[in-house]
Amino acid sequence: MTAPDLPRPADADPSLESDVFARGCTSRPVLQDITGRWGTLALAALAEGPFRFSALRRRVDGVSERMLSQTLQALERDGLVLRDVLGTIPPKVEYSLTDLGAEVAAQLTSLIHLVETRMPTITEAQAHYDSR
Amino acid sequence: MTAPDLPRPADADPSLESDVFARGCTSRPVLQDITGRWGTLALAALAEGPFRFSALRRRVDGVSERMLSQTLQALERDGLVLRDVLGTIPPKVEYSLTDLGAEVAAQLTSLIHLVETRMPTITEAQAHYDSR
Repeated sequence: MTAPDLPRPADADPSLESDVFARGCTSRPVLQDITGRWGTLALAALAEGPFRFSALRRRVDGVSERMLSQTLQALERDGLVLRDVLGTIPPKVEYSLTDLGAEVAAQLTSLIHLVETRMPTITEAQAHYDSR
Repeated sequence: MTAPDLPRPADADPSLESDVFARGCTSRPVLQDITGRWGTLALAALAEGPFRFSALRRRVDGVSERMLSQTLQALERDGLVLRDVLGTIPPKVEYSLTDLGAEVAAQLTSLIHLVETRMPTITEAQAHYDSR
């Protein structure tokens, strides 16, 4: 943490760098926004390009309107997602990634790719575990 | 998915590759184990080396015994974490990463590093959002 004039939890030590392992660190809720159930998928979807809300909801199969809306709001607040109201009639709202959001999404995409390609190994491990 | 003899959800199409965006895909719960609130921190901690349960619980500051235990069990089942019972008196249990777990943890560590180093930008975005 290097911005002394910004709010921080009462139990955070301003002399320390961010450390997600410390329960009071402001970086931990951000990591949770990013790695939460829908945050990961929303960011990875937006790495494919800008989406309108309803299209994004179809892409992130299974998310409720309310959960997607909360997820996007948290990511917008963290400076990872941009919400643009387009001057069309009727007005349309489009979501896209900020530069930092794109960096984060690239990391997530690579994690998702790793998990997807290793699913045969993982499924085998699960079957082995379940048969013990 | 390429292991036709292993169980899969009824709505998953066996001819498809894994796709976390599809709600029925077996890869989605695995991604949730990895990116869950405590999964991410447990894997990142184990990237530093093997831990006994109580030491790991101190490292992942704020996790309850029950949640850490559930988290480690899910990660062990996914083939990402090894649980070794050491033949000491009294017996000790040590947790470490499998090869695949180490690959996953490396991705998470790099994501955590990105978030931690960019916290000044993120905190500024949050303050801006909150003042609107």
